[in-house]
Formats: sequence, structure tokens, C-alpha cells
Amino acid sequence: MNSDRLQARLYNLRHNRFFEFFVVSVILFSAVVIGAKTYDIPDNLLTVIGWLDTGITFFFLTEVSVRFLGEPDKRNFFKDPWNVFDALIVVVSLIPVEDSELALVGRLIRIFRVLRMVSVVPELRLLLNSLFKALPQLGYVIMLMFIIFYIYAAVGASFFAPINKVLWGDISISMLTLFRVMTFEDWTDVMYETMTVYSFSWIYYLSFIFLTTFAFLNMVIGIVVNVMEDEHAQEAKVQAIADGEPTIQDLSDQIKELKAMLQQKQ
Amino acid sequence: MNSDRLQARLYNLRHNRFFEFFVVSVILFSAVVIGAKTYDIPDNLLTVIGWLDTGITFFFLTEVSVRFLGEPDKRNFFKDPWNVFDALIVVVSLIPVEDSELALVGRLIRIFRVLRMVSVVPELRLLLNSLFKALPQLGYVIMLMFIIFYIYAAVGASFFAPINKVLWGDISISMLTLFRVMTFEDWTDVMYETMTVYSFSWIYYLSFIFLTTFAFLNMVIGIVVNVMEDEHAQEAKVQAIADGEPTIQDLSDQIKELKAMLQQKQ
Amino acid sequence: MNSDRLQARLYNLRHNRFFEFFVVSVILFSAVVIGAKTYDIPDNLLTVIGWLDTGITFFFLTEVSVRFLGEPDKRNFFKDPWNVFDALIVVVSLIPVEDSELALVGRLIRIFRVLRMVSVVPELRLLLNSLFKALPQLGYVIMLMFIIFYIYAAVGASFFAPINKVLWGDISISMLTLFRVMTFEDWTDVMYETMTVYSFSWIYYLSFIFLTTFAFLNMVIGIVVNVMEDEHAQEAKVQAIADGEPTIQDLSDQIKELKAMLQQKQ
Amino acid sequence: MNSDRLQARLYNLRHNRFFEFFVVSVILFSAVVIGAKTYDIPDNLLTVIGWLDTGITFFFLTEVSVRFLGEPDKRNFFKDPWNVFDALIVVVSLIPVEDSELALVGRLIRIFRVLRMVSVVPELRLLLNSLFKALPQLGYVIMLMFIIFYIYAAVGASFFAPINKVLWGDISISMLTLFRVMTFEDWTDVMYETMTVYSFSWIYYLSFIFLTTFAFLNMVIGIVVNVMEDEHAQEAKVQAIADGEPTIQDLSDQIKELKAMLQQKQ
Repeated sequence: MNSDRLQARLYNLRHNRFFEFFVVSVILFSAVVIGAKTYDIPDNLLTVIGWLDTGITFFFLTEVSVRFLGEPDKRNFFKDPWNVFDALIVVVSLIPVEDSELALVGRLIRIFRVLRMVSVVPELRLLLNSLFKALPQLGYVIMLMFIIFYIYAAVGASFFAPINKVLWGDISISMLTLFRVMTFEDWTDVMYETMTVYSFSWIYYLSFIFLTTFAFLNMVIGIVVNVMEDEHAQEAKVQAIADGEPTIQDLSDQIKELKAMLQQKQ
Repeated sequence: MNSDRLQARLYNLRHNRFFEFFVVSVILFSAVVIGAKTYDIPDNLLTVIGWLDTGITFFFLTEVSVRFLGEPDKRNFFKDPWNVFDALIVVVSLIPVEDSELALVGRLIRIFRVLRMVSVVPELRLLLNSLFKALPQLGYVIMLMFIIFYIYAAVGASFFAPINKVLWGDISISMLTLFRVMTFEDWTDVMYETMTVYSFSWIYYLSFIFLTTFAFLNMVIGIVVNVMEDEHAQEAKVQAIADGEPTIQDLSDQIKELKAMLQQKQ
Repeated sequence: MNSDRLQARLYNLRHNRFFEFFVVSVILFSAVVIGAKTYDIPDNLLTVIGWLDTGITFFFLTEVSVRFLGEPDKRNFFKDPWNVFDALIVVVSLIPVEDSELALVGRLIRIFRVLRMVSVVPELRLLLNSLFKALPQLGYVIMLMFIIFYIYAAVGASFFAPINKVLWGDISISMLTLFRVMTFEDWTDVMYETMTVYSFSWIYYLSFIFLTTFAFLNMVIGIVVNVMEDEHAQEAKVQAIADGEPTIQDLSDQIKELKAMLQQKQ
Repeated sequence: MNSDRLQARLYNLRHNRFFEFFVVSVILFSAVVIGAKTYDIPDNLLTVIGWLDTGITFFFLTEVSVRFLGEPDKRNFFKDPWNVFDALIVVVSLIPVEDSELALVGRLIRIFRVLRMVSVVPELRLLLNSLFKALPQLGYVIMLMFIIFYIYAAVGASFFAPINKVLWGDISISMLTLFRVMTFEDWTDVMYETMTVYSFSWIYYLSFIFLTTFAFLNMVIGIVVNVMEDEHAQEAKVQAIADGEPTIQDLSDQIKELKAMLQQKQ
């Protein structure tokens, strides 16, 4: 009975606007603390930051606990991937790191706390969800891209390796060089170099740029537009139903009723 | 009575096509004057330009006054943010600046007069309005972007600071460097430098480029397309209603009438 | 009577598929001749090319004459802007140019013959027309862009001129530099230079890039998508009517008929 | 009878999920083998790779044979362009290449085996098909682009050849330079060089960039969006019919029935 009352109180706290706002503030503050460490700061300030860090860690621990205890059905808590994400960040940042090498890793984990912003602000969560929705469709485009990259990299490494070992030494370096060409970053320097040996190698670069940048980019745009439209159409449909606007199906039903009435009369 | 007649006359003047055209001309002329000052010009021409400047300032003062006095309800005048913007520009440019340091500030304010073009030409105002409409949706995308930038900058400043202080010295400089990477501006130079120490740092750059450029840009496009479509759909709806074309709702009402007629007959 | 028969024959010739194909071939050949002149070629070949050039000029004169004489109503000929364009190209290339300086101008005019490709191939004409349709809407975007450029160039020329005369000397050079920044072309070099004097000048560049590239590009995309959708919707409507598919208007009319029948019976 | 049973068994094998998965694995493995060759590897490993290569070649031969023999109607096999593509890759890689020069060609053919991934994974085939569907529409845009490039290259080669032979020597090199300008790759270096002689040549570059990048890119986006929408609309239509939702045509038919019933009664 007592625990039930506590749970209800924690549930209320968790859905309190001010509590949410306070959590966001602490996340922002923890981000500032992380940023501050990258500057040259006096030692005593560093000690203060260390204390603040510990404070933030324990605040986050409390906050996740509140949310966990405030959940009526404990199993539902871990069904939400954002809760798992939050719990993981908190638990990992509890591990004490003293060693200088591990200290960097510990710092990295503290950085990921900023990502908690996404799990707290609902609008950001929505944005990421719509991005995740486009992922399966993007997967095959990335697969196609990888095939194009692989083939061109194999050709590049076969022919251009003797010209420039740094850019075309093996297939993985060649793929990095091709990514550079795709971003148009000093790609003419790369091309002019190979054109001194193979004067027709501009065909290699131009065909690659056409295949990847133009075709691919447009496909990505097309997919995203499609996903957005799907959502949009669904929203419009839901809206129309909520507004009680009649659909073509309703009209058809009404006409059928009329017909039945006429037939009954005969 | 006299003031009413004056107000009506000013109201007419304000909505006069020639008056609007004249205001646009003066704004354009003031832009030319501002541009002329950036060239090396003889002293006597500079004096002439100074006179012209004063003339333009007083013309704008008159113009805003005309619009203010021509407004039947004075409170409505300040409800339009463009009027507030116009009044502010005019009032600020009235402050005399003689000091050489403040002279630059005064010059800057005069530059913003060119923005009055937007408040005068209705089509530009419409364009800006549709841009402002997309802002709240863009806000969260920019927030997500900032989180990605902040995390990558913190990682970058932690690991790459000893390699290049100028590019990765602290978290703010790192964010500027990452913005440079996002625009593909000599990003390979930045990458090759850190790859000499951390040979796998290409993962850092490629994942950053994928996350920001691809995902983000497509989200922006999606939002803009959505906003445009919303407006478009609304226009089409308004148009359809204005044309008197029947909607599905109308059909449903007609069928209901038929039903009522049949029932009445029975 | 004789001239009428000639006209009819020329009209047929003009709409002959083979004649069109032959005209396209001559245009392509004239393009090759223009290209050939940019290579180092022996003198006797140059003479041959000169003859070919004259031949092409007279062929084009004949072709335009055929189309003009084949037109039943002579006034309609000049109503089509593409005909005016064709006639102009032909007439101008008839002017003899011997002077070495004018020779370059004459050569330039011959280059524009390649544009006749657009006036001959109907699909290219359609493409250009849809581009022209988007122009008025693009006009205001370009106007807004110009205002942003002008204000930033005035600020840049005021503050950065002492740092680098070549890039920020006066307002027109500053606008060219800003265009360079907008295309991300070595924009960090420009920024790092001014940051040595004004360390906060990155705000100037970043705000400019955000305003122009992001906002503007998305507006352009939005407009183009809109124009394309309009055309698409119109096509779909025309198609639906052509297919004889009933519209909501038709349904409404049918139901009204039913109602009239019921009322008649009562 | 015996051959029929074999064919049926091969047909089953061909549509077996595990067989498909195995084929994909072998293709991926062959890609890894190709990639491995670009690294410096010891001679004995090279011999092993040679054996693996031969093994893969014969596996592919068997696989295509299975698919050919498993096809009930042999003529249908070559009607699918993907089958022709697969058969070609396999047959060509059977040609023995010993000569050091031809060895490179043989290696290239082995690289194209990776493309078989597209013919095996149905989702990638769908992606490519939708890309091919956009090609005819893109064809005319590319034609228009080529005309713009050709005219600008002819102008560039005529005026700028004496300034820089490497960039503007003849019309083909000029077109490559213009492609570089279109990708914004160090285009200001190209411009600043010609501006020292022709100070107004910035008009040449800016007009070219506007014409190609802005107009063209937006046209491409428009076309792709159109193609995607077409497909989307078609899918929605097919879906609606499959779901048994009534269309406006159905409504019209129902109303006509009603009318017939009323008329019959009179």
C-alpha cells in the first residue's frame, strides 16, 4: 500500500512539466561541463568540475530510478528502447575510471549523456523515429552505393596504385579516395595526377561522379519525400476521420441503403 | 474634421501605386549610396553623398509618418511587425553619429535600410512569411544537429587537440572545424592529418558526414516539401470551394435528402 | 495559284520527319566545325572548314526561308519566339566579318547556332518552357538573395577591406567573394584571414551560409516541386477527363437527376 | 521424362532460399578475393587465391547452367536482360588470360562479377529499374546540359586558350574545366586567372554556374520526384482496388442502377 502510494507520487513527478524542464537543464549543464574540460582551466576549477560531474551522475541515477519506480508495470519500462538507452548511459557512467587511458573512455561515455536530450524531448524523439523509418529503404541504396564504390575502387587500385600509393595503394584506401571524389574535395588534383599516365582516366572519374552523386542523391531524396508523404497522407486520413468527413466508402454504403429501400417498396 | 480629411488624403497617398514605386526607388538609391561609399571616391563627392544620406533619412521619416498618420486606428499600426521594423530603422538612423568608431555602427544601420525593400514589396514579404512558417519545424532539426555537433566536437577536442591546436584546440573551435568538414571544405586535409596519429579516424569523419549532411539535409528537404504541400493543398481546397465544385460532403448531403424523400413517400 | 502550290509543298517539306532529322544533323555538324576550330589544325583544313561554314550558313538561310514560305499566314511565323530566334541567328551570321577583332564576335555568333538544337527538338523546347514557367516565382527569390548579398557585402567591404583589398576592396568584389563563400569554395581561407583581426567574424560567415545556402536552396526546391506538381495535377485531370472517368461533379449531377425523377413521381 | 524430372528439380533448387543465400555468399566471397589482390600478399597466398578464383568461376558457370536448365521454356531465359547479363559475365570469365597485359583485362571482368549481386537480390533490381525508368526523361536534360557545356566551352576555348593552355587548350579540355567549375572545385582559381586579362569574365562563370547547377539540378529533382510520385500513386491505386474500396466509378455505377430501378417502377 505504502509502495503503491510512492509509485503514484513518482509517476506524477515523472510527468510533471517542471521536473522535465529541470532534467533538460541538468543535461544542458552536463554538456557545458563536458565542453569546459576541453579548455585550459585552472586546477581548482577542475576539482569543482569533478564534483559537479559526480553530482550529475547521481542526479541521472535518481532520475532514471524515479522513472523506473514510477512505472506501474515494471516490464513495460524496458520495452521502450529509449528507457534502455537511458539506463545504459547511467549505469556505464557509474563505473569508476582512474586509469589515465580508461579516463578518456569514461569521458567519452559522459559525452553521450548529451544524447539523453533526445530521449527527454518528445519532438526530437519523433524526428529520430521518422529518420529510422526511412532506414530500411535507405539500406538497399547504401548497398547499391557500396557495390559501385567497390567496383570502382578495385579498378582504381589495379590501375592507379603505381601512380600514387597514398591514394590508390589498396582497395580500402581507394574507397576513401573515391568518397573524397564524391564530395568533390580537390577531386581534380586526384584526376589530373592519373591523367598524366592514363589520359582517358577522366572517364573513370566523371562516370563515377555521375553514378554516385546524381543518381544516388536523387534516389535518397525520392525515398525521403516518399516517407514524408506517406506520413502526411496518413495524418490527413486520420484527420479526415476525426473530423467526421464522409469517405467514398460512406457514400457507397448510403447508396446501397437507398437501393435496399427501393427494393423493399417494390 | 480637418485632421480626418488629412488622414484620408494620407491614406490614399499611402496606397497609391506611384508612391509605392517612388519609395522603392528611394530605397534602391539609398542602397547605391551605401555601395558607393565602399569605393575610393573624391572628397567633394563624399560631401554630396553625405547630403543625399541626410535627404534619404528625412524622406524615410516622412514616409513612415505618412503611413502612421494615414492609419485610421493608430494601435493597428504597431500590430504589424513590418511597421515596427520600419519605424525602428528610421528612428535609429536619426541618431547623429560623429565619432569615428560610432560612424561605422551608423553606417551599418544605414545598410539595414535595404531590408526595407522586403517590407515594401508584398511578394518578398510573402516569401519571408513562408520561410518563418517552416522555422518551428526546422528548430528541432537544428537542435538535433547541434547535439550531433557538440558530441563530435567534444570527442574531437579530446583526441585531436594535441595534433592540431588551431583546428581542435577547444570545443568551440572544434565545432567550427566540424562545420567546415560538413561543407566538404578541404575536409580531407583535416582528416589526413589526424589519420597519421589515429589511422582509424576516418570513421569519425565519415560517420559525421553521413549523420549531418545526408540525414539532416534530407530532413530539411522533407520539411520544406511538407510545408509547401500544406500550403498548396490549402490553396487547392480554397480554390475548389470558390469554384463551387461539389465535395464528398455535398454528395453525402444530397443522398441523405433522397433518402428522406423516399421515406416520406412510404 | 502557282505560289500556293509551292507553299503547300514547302509546308509538307517542313513537317517531313526526314527534313527535321537532316536539319538536326547539319546543326550537329556545325557544332563539330566550331569545336574543330579550337584545335591546332593545318591551314588547308582551315580553308575547308571556312567553306563548310559558308555552306552551313546558306543551308540555314534556306531552311528558315522554307519554313517562312511554307507558313500559310505569314504573320503567325513571327508570333512564335523560336522562329524569331532562328531568323535572328541566321541573319546575323550572314554579316561578313573580315576584321580580326570582329572575327571573334562572328565566331561567337556561329556558336549560338548550336542553340538552334533547342528550337528544332520539341522535347528540349518543352523542357525550357517549364523552366521559363518557374522563372517569375524564382525572380523574387533571386531578389531576396540579392538583398542578403548586398547587405553582407556592404558590411564586409566596411570591415574587411583593410585586411584584404583583393577580396573585400569594394562592394562588387565583396559580392563576388560572398558568392565564392556560398559555393563553399575555400571559404575557410577567407574566414581564417578575417578571424585574425575580428575573432568573431565566423558569425558573419556562418549566418551568411545559413541564410543563403540552406534557406534559399530549400525555397528553390520548394518552388520547383510546386511547379512540377501543378503540371502533374493538370495532366492527371486532363487524363481523367479524356478517359471518361466520372468526377464528383458528375456524381452530383446524377443524384440531382434521381431527385428530379422522385419529385416528378410524387 | 528423365530430363523433365531433372528440370523440375533444378527449378526447385533455383527458387530455394538457401541456394539464393549461398549464391550471394559466393559473390561476396569473390568480391573479397578481388579486394585481397590489391594488397601486397605473399606468393603462396596468391596461388591459393588463383585456385579460389577458378573455383568461383566454375561455381558461377554451374549456377547459371542450373537456372538455364531449370527454366521450363528455354526462350524465356534470354528474354530477361539480367539472365543475359549473368551469362555474359560467366562466359567471358571462362576465357583463359595468361598474357600480362590481358591479365589486367581479365581482372577487370572478374570485378564485374560483384555486379551479379544486383541480379541476385530482387530489392536492388527494383531500385535499378526505377532508376532506368527515369532515364528517358533525364536524357533530354543531359542533352540540354551538353548544349550549354558545348557553347560555354567553345567561348572559353576561343578567349581563354592563350591564358592557360592546360585548362582551355581546346574544346574538350574546356568542357572538363567547366565540369570542374560546375562541381565548385577550386573554380575561383580558374576565374581569378582569367579575370587578370578579361576583368568581366566573372559573368562567364557566374552565368554558367547559375544555368547548370541551379536550373539543371532542380529539373533533375523535379523529374525524380515526379517519377516517384507516379509509382506511389499507382501503388496506392492498386492497393485501393485490392482492398475492395469503392472508386468514384463504382459510385456512378451504383447510382445508375438506382436510376434504372426508378425508371422500371414508373
